Amino acid sequence: MFRQTAEFTDWFAEQRTAHHYRVIPAPLDGLDGWIRDPDRGTLRHRTGGFFSIDGLEVRTDNRETESWQQPIIDQPESGILGILVKRFAGVPHFLMQAKMEPGNINVLQLSPTVQATRSNYTRLHRGGSVPYLEHFLAPRRGRIVFDALQSEQGSWFLHKRNRNMIVEVTEDVPVLDRFCWLTAGQIGELLMLDNVINMDARTVLAGWPEAGGRPPAPGSAREALTLSASTDRARHTDAELLSWFTEAKASHQLDRRAIALNETKGWVCGADRISHESGRWFSVLGVDVEAGSREVARWSQPMIQPSGRGVIAFVARRLDGVLHLLVKAHTEAGTLDVVEMGPTVQCVPDNYLHLPKSRQPDFLNLVLSAPNEQIHFDVVHSEEGGRFYHAENRYLLVEAGDDAPLDAGPGYIWMTVRQLSAMARHGSHVNVEARNLLACLRLMP
Amino acid sequence: MFRQTAEFTDWFAEQRTAHHYRVIPAPLDGLDGWIRDPDRGTLRHRTGGFFSIDGLEVRTDNRETESWQQPIIDQPESGILGILVKRFAGVPHFLMQAKMEPGNINVLQLSPTVQATRSNYTRLHRGGSVPYLEHFLAPRRGRIVFDALQSEQGSWFLHKRNRNMIVEVTEDVPVLDRFCWLTAGQIGELLMLDNVINMDARTVLAGWPEAGGRPPAPGSAREALTLSASTDRARHTDAELLSWFTEAKASHQLDRRAIALNETKGWVCGADRISHESGRWFSVLGVDVEAGSREVARWSQPMIQPSGRGVIAFVARRLDGVLHLLVKAHTEAGTLDVVEMGPTVQCVPDNYLHLPKSRQPDFLNLVLSAPNEQIHFDVVHSEEGGRFYHAENRYLLVEAGDDAPLDAGPGYIWMTVRQLSAMARHGSHVNVEARNLLACLRLMP
Repeated sequence: MFRQTAEFTDWFAEQRTAHHYRVIPAPLDGLDGWIRDPDRGTLRHRTGGFFSIDGLEVRTDNRETESWQQPIIDQPESGILGILVKRFAGVPHFLMQAKMEPGNINVLQLSPTVQATRSNYTRLHRGGSVPYLEHFLAPRRGRIVFDALQSEQGSWFLHKRNRNMIVEVTEDVPVLDRFCWLTAGQIGELLMLDNVINMDARTVLAGWPEAGGRPPAPGSAREALTLSASTDRARHTDAELLSWFTEAKASHQLDRRAIALNETKGWVCGADRISHESGRWFSVLGVDVEAGSREVARWSQPMIQPSGRGVIAFVARRLDGVLHLLVKAHTEAGTLDVVEMGPTVQCVPDNYLHLPKSRQPDFLNLVLSAPNEQIHFDVVHSEEGGRFYHAENRYLLVEAGDDAPLDAGPGYIWMTVRQLSAMARHGSHVNVEARNLLACLRLMP
Repeated sequence: MFRQTAEFTDWFAEQRTAHHYRVIPAPLDGLDGWIRDPDRGTLRHRTGGFFSIDGLEVRTDNRETESWQQPIIDQPESGILGILVKRFAGVPHFLMQAKMEPGNINVLQLSPTVQATRSNYTRLHRGGSVPYLEHFLAPRRGRIVFDALQSEQGSWFLHKRNRNMIVEVTEDVPVLDRFCWLTAGQIGELLMLDNVINMDARTVLAGWPEAGGRPPAPGSAREALTLSASTDRARHTDAELLSWFTEAKASHQLDRRAIALNETKGWVCGADRISHESGRWFSVLGVDVEAGSREVARWSQPMIQPSGRGVIAFVARRLDGVLHLLVKAHTEAGTLDVVEMGPTVQCVPDNYLHLPKSRQPDFLNLVLSAPNEQIHFDVVHSEEGGRFYHAENRYLLVEAGDDAPLDAGPGYIWMTVRQLSAMARHGSHVNVEARNLLACLRLMP
C-alpha cells in the first residue's frame, strides 16, 4: 500500500525499468504467425484464434456519411476485465497491475487485476496462467459489485464486448510481483495524469458505485455530482431517458455487410500496411514484440493506428443546481444494436480539417475553444494497447453554461451523472468512450 | 367508460357481431400474394414486405438439444404497440381496441390502442390509416410512461422486436368505433378470463408502473407484491441479478445459420403445410381471411400453429415475507443476445410426452401437480393472432413454498416482482412469456 501517490510513482518507475520490452513496427507481409488470405486479403492468425481483420461496408442514417467501407477487427470471443477490491481499515483498495502492452506510447500502464481474452485464459498461446482469474470465474466467493458485458471501440471493432467485473473480497490476497493496491482517491489522482491508467481499467472503474477521494469542495463539479446522487432534480425522468434511447434505436438504421478486405473502397492494402488513400482515419500496421514480463516473451501482431489524436468530451451544464451531461446517441461501424449512449463529442479532429466549420462535428468547436475556467479536466489517455498502436485521446469535461443549448436536437439528451452511471450498469447502453469519461469524472480528486 | 365489467362484456359481445369475419385454412401452395421460392422453399410476400419464413440451424449449450433445424419467421422491421392512458377523476384509464386477428381462437380480442407494423403504418398494403398513431410518433405531446424495444416469441421469430409504449395524455381524446376506456382494475379482471386481452396488450401492460385494482387483501399475493415494491428485502441485490444475467450471456453460446427451408432437417414441406415429421413442435399453414373491420377486407397469409397448448409459469416463493419469482435464463432459436430472463417453465408439454419424466422440463411436474391453494392464477391466453394460429398457453403463478429449492442451479435466480419489472423497462432483458406473466401478476384483482 502506498501512503502517498509519490510512493506509487517510485514503484511504477521501478516496474518500468525492471523488465525488458521492445516493440518494432514490421511489415504486414511476413508477420510471424499471421496469414494474409490471398483471395480476400483477410488478416488472420494461423491458429484461427485471437482476432482477424477484414472488410466491412456500413450503411446508416445516423452519421455524416450514409455509406462507407473500412477494415474492421473481428474478435468474436469476449474476455474478462476484472478488478479485485478489498477494504483495508474500511477504505476500499483496488488491486491494479503494471502491464506492458505493445500499443502503449509508454509501454507500461496500470491495468485491471485481470485482463484476459478467452484465448489468454484457455491458454491458446501456451503462456503462463492468468493470476487472480479464480476470483472472477464461477463459483466465486467474493461479493459482486459490478458485472456487465460492455462494448468496445465501435470504429475499429465489430460487435466486440468484454465482461467488466468488480469483485470485493474480505480474505487475504497475496500481492504478486507487478501488482499493487490503490485507493479510489489515488486512482482518481492518477486518472488526471496522461497515459497512466489504461483503457481496460478505466472502463471497469466506471462501474464503481461509490464516489472516490476526499469530500468535494463547495461549488466544485464533484459537489454537483454528489448532489445529483442524492436528489431527483434531473431534467428528465428515467422513463424519458429510456424512451429517448428506444426512439434512437427504432428510428435509425445500421446495416453491415462483410466484404473482402482487399476490395475495401478507398483503402490501399500494401505489403507494409493498410491505409486510407486520403491519409485520414487509421492504418493497419504490424509489430514485432519482445517482452520479459508477459505470458510469452516474443510475438508479432497487426495493430490499428489512428491518424491523429482524438477528442472525447462531455459538454456539461448545471440545471437546477445539478450537473448534467449532454449525451449523444452514437452509431459506429461496429455498434451491436444501432446506437449507444456516447459523449457529446467523439472524433479525431484531423479527419474533418478539410471540411468547412459548418460540416465539422457538433460541439467540437465549443469544446476546443472553451476557456480554462469551464474545463474540469483535460487529460490524454491511451486506448487498448493490445490492439491499438499509440492511440491517444484527449478526454475533457467542459461545463459550458448557457453556451450549451437546452434542446440540442433529437440525437442528444441531458442526463445527470447518476442517471448515466445507472445506464452503464446494463451492458450495451453506454459506449466505451462515455464510460471512460465517467470513470474520470466520478473518481477525479 | 364502463362502470362495471359486465357493461364491457355487453359492448364486447356487440363488437363481435357487428362485423363480418371469416378465416379459412388454405394450402400454402397458391396462397394469394405469397411465393414459395423454387430453390430454397422460402415463403415470402410478392412485394417483399410483411415477413418471410425460411430455415434456421441453431447451435446452443443452453437447451435440451445441442443442435436443431427449424422454420422461422423473419420480420426485420419493428412495429409499435402503444397504449394511450388518460386519467378520469384521477383514475388512469387505458384506451383499448376490439381487434380482429386471424389466428385468434375467438377472432376478436382486446388489443393496444395502436398495434401496427411499419408496413401497416407506411401503408404497404394500401389500407386505411392507423388511428391514434400520432400520439406515439415524435414529436409527441403526451408524457412517456414506458417505451422499450421488446423481443417476441423466440421459438418462432428471428430477432423480432416491437416497440412497447405507454403514453399518458391530458387532452380530449375522441373514442372511435371499436375503442373503449378501461381502468387497470377492469383490465386486471379481464386478464383472469381466457383469451380476452391479446398478447400485444399484455406485453405493453407489463410496463405499467402502478399497481392496479383495489387495495390488496391481507396475506394475498398482491399484498406481498405491494410489500416488495416498498422494501429492500430482496434475496439478491440488483448488482447480483445483473451479474447472473451477464454470466448466463458470457458462459453460453448461441450460433445460428440461415439454411434453405426445403432442406430443413426433420421438416416436411408439403403443398398444404410444413410440419415436423414427428408431429411435434409446430406447423406452417395458410389462411384466407375476410374481414369487415380491418384496413383491408380480404387477404391471405401463412401462419404458425403450435402442436399443442403450452404451459408458461412462474414458480414463486415468499422469502423474508416478500414474493419472489424463480426466473430462468432462457435461450431460444430467435433470441437476440444469447439469453433473456424467462419464466420458470415455458414449454408445450406434448412435445416431451415421449421422454421419461427425468428428461422433461424442470419444474413442469411441480407446476402441473400444484394443489389449488398454491395457484394464484391459471388462465389461458392466445399469442399474437397476426402470426400464430390458435396458439394458446396456460399462464400460471404457483406459490410453491418449500417445494421450490432456494438454489435451483446456475440457470435460475430468485427475483422480486419489483426487480423483474425494473429489468423489463430495459429492452431485451425479459422475454415475452415472462412479461405476459408480469402483466397478469401485477394487474390481477
